[in-house]
Amino acid sequence: MNDLCLRPACELAALLRSRQLSARELLEASLARIDELDPVLNAVVVRDDERARQRAAELDEALVHGGPVGPLHGLPTAHKDLLDAAGLPTSYGSRIFAGNVARRDSLLAARVRAAGAVRLGKTNVPEFGAGSQTHNPVFGTTRNPYDPSRTPGGSSGGAAAALATGMVAVADGSDMGGSLRNPASFCNIVGLRPTPGRVPNVPAADAWYDLSVLGPLGRRAADVALLLAAIAGPDARDPYAGWPAEPRLLEPLDRDLRGVRAAWGGSLGLPFSSAVLEAHERARAGVASLGLHLTPAEPDVRGADEVFRTLRGWHLAATIGDAVERAGDDVGPMVRENVAYGRTVTAAQVARAQQRRTALLTAATAFFDEVEFLFLPVSQVLPFDAAEPWVREIEGEPMPDYLAWMRSAYLVSVLRVPAASVPAGFTPEGLPVGLQVVGRPGDDLGVLQVAHALEQVFRAHERPPDLDALRRAASTGAARR
Amino acid sequence: MNDLCLRPACELAALLRSRQLSARELLEASLARIDELDPVLNAVVVRDDERARQRAAELDEALVHGGPVGPLHGLPTAHKDLLDAAGLPTSYGSRIFAGNVARRDSLLAARVRAAGAVRLGKTNVPEFGAGSQTHNPVFGTTRNPYDPSRTPGGSSGGAAAALATGMVAVADGSDMGGSLRNPASFCNIVGLRPTPGRVPNVPAADAWYDLSVLGPLGRRAADVALLLAAIAGPDARDPYAGWPAEPRLLEPLDRDLRGVRAAWGGSLGLPFSSAVLEAHERARAGVASLGLHLTPAEPDVRGADEVFRTLRGWHLAATIGDAVERAGDDVGPMVRENVAYGRTVTAAQVARAQQRRTALLTAATAFFDEVEFLFLPVSQVLPFDAAEPWVREIEGEPMPDYLAWMRSAYLVSVLRVPAASVPAGFTPEGLPVGLQVVGRPGDDLGVLQVAHALEQVFRAHERPPDLDALRRAASTGAARR
Repeated sequence: MNDLCLRPACELAALLRSRQLSARELLEASLARIDELDPVLNAVVVRDDERARQRAAELDEALVHGGPVGPLHGLPTAHKDLLDAAGLPTSYGSRIFAGNVARRDSLLAARVRAAGAVRLGKTNVPEFGAGSQTHNPVFGTTRNPYDPSRTPGGSSGGAAAALATGMVAVADGSDMGGSLRNPASFCNIVGLRPTPGRVPNVPAADAWYDLSVLGPLGRRAADVALLLAAIAGPDARDPYAGWPAEPRLLEPLDRDLRGVRAAWGGSLGLPFSSAVLEAHERARAGVASLGLHLTPAEPDVRGADEVFRTLRGWHLAATIGDAVERAGDDVGPMVRENVAYGRTVTAAQVARAQQRRTALLTAATAFFDEVEFLFLPVSQVLPFDAAEPWVREIEGEPMPDYLAWMRSAYLVSVLRVPAASVPAGFTPEGLPVGLQVVGRPGDDLGVLQVAHALEQVFRAHERPPDLDALRRAASTGAARR
Repeated sequence: MNDLCLRPACELAALLRSRQLSARELLEASLARIDELDPVLNAVVVRDDERARQRAAELDEALVHGGPVGPLHGLPTAHKDLLDAAGLPTSYGSRIFAGNVARRDSLLAARVRAAGAVRLGKTNVPEFGAGSQTHNPVFGTTRNPYDPSRTPGGSSGGAAAALATGMVAVADGSDMGGSLRNPASFCNIVGLRPTPGRVPNVPAADAWYDLSVLGPLGRRAADVALLLAAIAGPDARDPYAGWPAEPRLLEPLDRDLRGVRAAWGGSLGLPFSSAVLEAHERARAGVASLGLHLTPAEPDVRGADEVFRTLRGWHLAATIGDAVERAGDDVGPMVRENVAYGRTVTAAQVARAQQRRTALLTAATAFFDEVEFLFLPVSQVLPFDAAEPWVREIEGEPMPDYLAWMRSAYLVSVLRVPAASVPAGFTPEGLPVGLQVVGRPGDDLGVLQVAHALEQVFRAHERPPDLDALRRAASTGAARR
């Protein structure tokens, strides 16, 4: 693979550090890639070319003069448009916030910058990040690089499409109900939902709300580890962020997994597209080839559905409810319905949800005393029509609402475990399918070690999107926003 | 001081390890002390003499045969009666649960046992641990060893009275609004409210409720560190317990504090008994003598009062509300009123409280970027009449309810910082007064290092309660339950 932009971030970082590649060269290649492909993909919806060029030049200059070199030195990146990056708009994909410019960096953006990355813009999200597709009334629809008629997933869909096509080297995202995992699965990249607290969420409206976490995306497991190392580490403003820094994230992820006990999970009792279940079953031999001691088992998720919906609805109503209600039709019906539901949640329901979640956490801890890892499908469906707001049915079973097809991801969120989507191959029609690797609470490193091992088994990264086809589509204006 | 029972736990642990003292001897001395003094103090309200004797014998035997020796080897202890210890009643000081026998150890009790301690019983609490005195309809009133007409404070009042008189070597407690600090202040011992998550709270009805934390009490700072080392350490069942083990807790606490920046706090705008403020002012010279760079400053606590009351009320209603309402007059009016208030708390109020607390946490983090420690009074009053359910007025200002006099402790709870009560001297009438040492989030060790340094300045531990007077009172039946 001779495409500079698609090389692993770890390799690019080494080339940059050794001055075989300059930050300016890599940035220009990235910007050219966005110019070429974003007319069809619409992944990087805010650009900051001039400041990025200035920053790249400063980094090159600093390196020449022996200045300190951060672990992300010179790597082009973009921030999810739910996250504040000073001087850039944060729209949350909402008309209400169109034109809102962040005055300060969020902690994650500051850490990424301090680690030496080059910020070139913002990546697209669904309206308020709600849902696992990526379209909104401000910036339009982001498309899947493997098939632009389909969605890249979401809510970190802009980040996933940008990574898959080499627009950026690493990218952040966030995940309440699968937003780092579904887009990774749909775009053939690696996305890690870390243990809550591993990546401090600062500033937060409600620092106690830990269903939503920030996390890294990359083309390779080691790239994800590289970014995670930069954004992880304690911060007293996040009550969950007592986790110390994990220096082993920067060491090779190679690990002998033979004999390690793991659970092979199935459908969690949920409806799945048969193509997803077939891909999951095909992946089993690859996982087994690592020598893991695999037994069929799944954790207890009874009641997790209600826990997720109760806490999510309550949180949305409390944080964006007033703004959404004031905005009327300026906000889409799905978000308005979510807020309306959230307004009905009572204090007693919230308390019961936390109590039920406590029981699930206890059960999950016991489950992971027996096995070190759990393998599940990521998403219940394949990448679907980008024009569909949500999945209406799965194998004939109607989905009652736009959260219903994300349960294989969001039930895992409830358990406070780290979970990654790892590229595991393709359907016969060429759509990527990820495998969900779930680890013990706190064992983000272990999940990435398994992801790294599987990468060498599945080698799905060797099949990038058809960039020439995307270029043709972009030049003919085949895709609309 | 030749009283074996009153020697520091660290010294006793060394004597036990070197076999200069047997666990059996120390246990018999402790049981004799309880026999002598508890008729007046009523601190250890559940006893388990026979199992304790068997356990002490086993520990002595194991040591002879070179078995593993835990850090608490042979130390007599008792658990707070809010905490499950297998085979012993957990009454929560409530008639509803009188006779309820725990089938399993809580995590803390299991860790204390695994560390080699000898469990001899349970310590008294107020009904459901609510309030900062120690009386309940099951076991009656616990009394202050410095003046049995007065309260030892609470809710860890049984533990504090037992420690002050040598009935146990170390003891656990818990602290929502001051329950490890007020009794320590009132009984001239050291009590540490650790950073939430430092000591996992397992099992918990709602693992996300982090206003209440478990923590250690002892006669010396090093004893508190010894117990903390045994009960701290991560557990996935507690979302906040990502903190790794802190081995430095078992090293000497000596530290040169010269030049360390610290804030000397005053009254936080609250009413205080003039005797407390005078004692606080007297303590200042002692603190300054450590060479700390002291400046007058206090953290922002605006809105912390409402945060505490909202979250506490909501939590009480959700956890004990149904049981309390079913019980009618079997539960006292204070707890019933708390539950009734908690039932009125709405989901929106809970969310607003968490959002306000997020802002306070951010401000506190910035405050503790400037200073390493903060010194405050512990309690707004001196130990008061044991027959009074709560403090009705302070210096003429009426207190509207039984939480109102605990604000100097509970406002600190809202900030998620570690806070200790350190013995700082006595009033002219001989009542102990503690100094509240507050540290950066996570810096439990630093707080104990300051406590240790202050111990050598104030030397208040050299003035134990008048045990002979207590013996006389016990033998004449001067105090009633």
